[in-house]
Amino acid sequence: MADLNFIRKLVIPATSKIVLLVIDGVGGLPMREGGLTELETARTPNLDALAARSICGLSEPISPGITPGSGPAHLALFGYDPIKYQIGRGVLEALGIGFDLQPSDLAARGNFCTIDAKGVVTDRRAGRISTEKCIELSDLLSGIELPGVEVFIEPVKEHRFLLVLRGEGLSDELTESDPTRLGVPPLPIEPKPEASTETAARRTAQLANEFVAQAKAILADHHPANMLLLRGFAQLPQWPTMEEAYGLKAAAIAAYPMYRGVAKLVGMEILEAGETIAEEFESLAENYGRYDFFFLHVKKTDSAGEDGDFDRKVAYIEEVDRNIPSLLKLEPEVIIVTGDHSTPALLRSHSWHPVPLLLYSRYCRPDAVREFSERACAAGALGRFPAVEIMPLALANAGRLVRFGA
Amino acid sequence: MADLNFIRKLVIPATSKIVLLVIDGVGGLPMREGGLTELETARTPNLDALAARSICGLSEPISPGITPGSGPAHLALFGYDPIKYQIGRGVLEALGIGFDLQPSDLAARGNFCTIDAKGVVTDRRAGRISTEKCIELSDLLSGIELPGVEVFIEPVKEHRFLLVLRGEGLSDELTESDPTRLGVPPLPIEPKPEASTETAARRTAQLANEFVAQAKAILADHHPANMLLLRGFAQLPQWPTMEEAYGLKAAAIAAYPMYRGVAKLVGMEILEAGETIAEEFESLAENYGRYDFFFLHVKKTDSAGEDGDFDRKVAYIEEVDRNIPSLLKLEPEVIIVTGDHSTPALLRSHSWHPVPLLLYSRYCRPDAVREFSERACAAGALGRFPAVEIMPLALANAGRLVRFGA
Repeated sequence: MADLNFIRKLVIPATSKIVLLVIDGVGGLPMREGGLTELETARTPNLDALAARSICGLSEPISPGITPGSGPAHLALFGYDPIKYQIGRGVLEALGIGFDLQPSDLAARGNFCTIDAKGVVTDRRAGRISTEKCIELSDLLSGIELPGVEVFIEPVKEHRFLLVLRGEGLSDELTESDPTRLGVPPLPIEPKPEASTETAARRTAQLANEFVAQAKAILADHHPANMLLLRGFAQLPQWPTMEEAYGLKAAAIAAYPMYRGVAKLVGMEILEAGETIAEEFESLAENYGRYDFFFLHVKKTDSAGEDGDFDRKVAYIEEVDRNIPSLLKLEPEVIIVTGDHSTPALLRSHSWHPVPLLLYSRYCRPDAVREFSERACAAGALGRFPAVEIMPLALANAGRLVRFGA
Repeated sequence: MADLNFIRKLVIPATSKIVLLVIDGVGGLPMREGGLTELETARTPNLDALAARSICGLSEPISPGITPGSGPAHLALFGYDPIKYQIGRGVLEALGIGFDLQPSDLAARGNFCTIDAKGVVTDRRAGRISTEKCIELSDLLSGIELPGVEVFIEPVKEHRFLLVLRGEGLSDELTESDPTRLGVPPLPIEPKPEASTETAARRTAQLANEFVAQAKAILADHHPANMLLLRGFAQLPQWPTMEEAYGLKAAAIAAYPMYRGVAKLVGMEILEAGETIAEEFESLAENYGRYDFFFLHVKKTDSAGEDGDFDRKVAYIEEVDRNIPSLLKLEPEVIIVTGDHSTPALLRSHSWHPVPLLLYSRYCRPDAVREFSERACAAGALGRFPAVEIMPLALANAGRLVRFGA
């Protein structure tokens, strides 16, 4: 398959522009056997008209049957093989709250949890304490001092927080303290077996355990949040940027920190997203002259799907549709509309189902699809295909790739 | 691609059930240009109705243009990449006759052949002697004794037999004695070049050559079967079971030894299959409570195809269709109906053509296909896709996979 290294050798400069509109979780399912999906139910005259001028298909985020998290799903959309380019959970958490992670930082995802008098975990999420409580406890833990490293504690949401250790020579080759079940005490943090003799891993494990010990003492009186669990120790990956890989000056318009964070990992600049879907499209128009590639992310469709709210998801899809004319007015050379994955309201979660996709360009070779929906796109000329193939196709349609071989 | 190791990390426990109904060789061809295939000709109201509630496609057993044997075709259906997971010919021969191969056994495929006075091979198949003659000669050879190993000779069919050496420390890293052409003597068996210094391979080669020498003496007066050739030395492979790979307690219902054998290679338990197609479905119903995954194999369609008997193949497909209601009554969470490969009566053999497939589950996202046939499934939302992707998709539909990444 055409990977980043193959593509980058074919890239040539151009002035064309590509807009990737990601309607998060747009793919869905009928609530009743024989019914319509959210997208089939939504009135989307603008997307349907664009589909008629486009080439369509179903994008497979990872591979058949695999339900992706948001990180891997977006990396695939950006053309980065999500099995090769894996983001550690700690880094993902940092991205999610917009923490400005530095290359040598070590990040971990923390949970406040409950332990009983014997020290065994009785609730891994401390009864989902309020975010206000999380902020208060994170402040308390911020006073912890460790030898040779800076300690950052950032509240995330409810029982979740971010731990970052800053200093040289840290390793992310560590096991987790979360036992992932109840009735046992938190686990000591250790170097992973394959790193058990590495000095950096051993020192970092010591630091992490020292942090846990101090935190335990501080939290002792704060039942139900009287202990914490650490997972997904990770450092910032060093990946080629989209400018290096594709020669694209790329920008992201996304209202949620997670998506801005993933965009930053591949070197995108982060633009103002505002509060509403319309404001995201306004930001696109305002910044249109300054970049070659725009990733515009709409979150609300996914949230509605996760809430099991079929009608609200339909309404957000229709809201996106009403903004399509403002996108068309910019006349980008290439427009892609798709999702990162499916989030059927029926399942109240991400799912493995492939995602409808349309790609418009003057040179796209339109197929017979006249409607932007799961069933219609299944009959599109792109068929069902891996999401990592979207970017090479977009670059080609944008006149940004030379031929391979003589 | 999502291989077994990738999948197994995502597997979670569940109580859902998956039924994989394999109609062997179901894919076909029209006898006359412009005509209908066997499956298109057959009246299959139950399969058609199920297809309408399912997602459909064409399953590619290995890759385009490749005609598979039964072993690799079934491994692909079970999600085991048939290019990575290859079954040695000796083992395949043992599976085909239901020989109970043990982990340290060494199996080889034998041919009775003809040599002339100078010892050169004049017929590699000894004029295809009768199976009765094969049984008689195999009995004679069963008297051969070798130091430190037991010798088993099992007649297969016509000139073909199975040799099994049983004992510790045997190696299958051996060259073959079949020169694969006429006018030269049988070759001595030697360790393969990469195993030339291994004690086990050297000892096993000696044993095999000693067997050949004794057999040659015994067969001398049995022209045309006055010699033998040995090929495909192989031992039972040690692969992950379906329980290890997928967390599935799996069972096979198959009337022919070969299919039971391949099922055993991936850890399935073998259930009573009876004599008729209906009895196979009855066995499914009787054992339904005891397993998570059922492989139900119908052989007769393939046999009819191999015989070039279009009408008989049509009749067997219709017989399968009549049993579908009894399958639906069990209400498995996931039903897959497909073949392992195509066996068009027109070609009287396995072929490379992809195989119609339907996958039903409450969450399958049905497509527009309303008929179970080659042409209809070609328009299904799964498109044409590798057979190894079936199991991940089945597991996802059965709620047995967690998401990949956060």
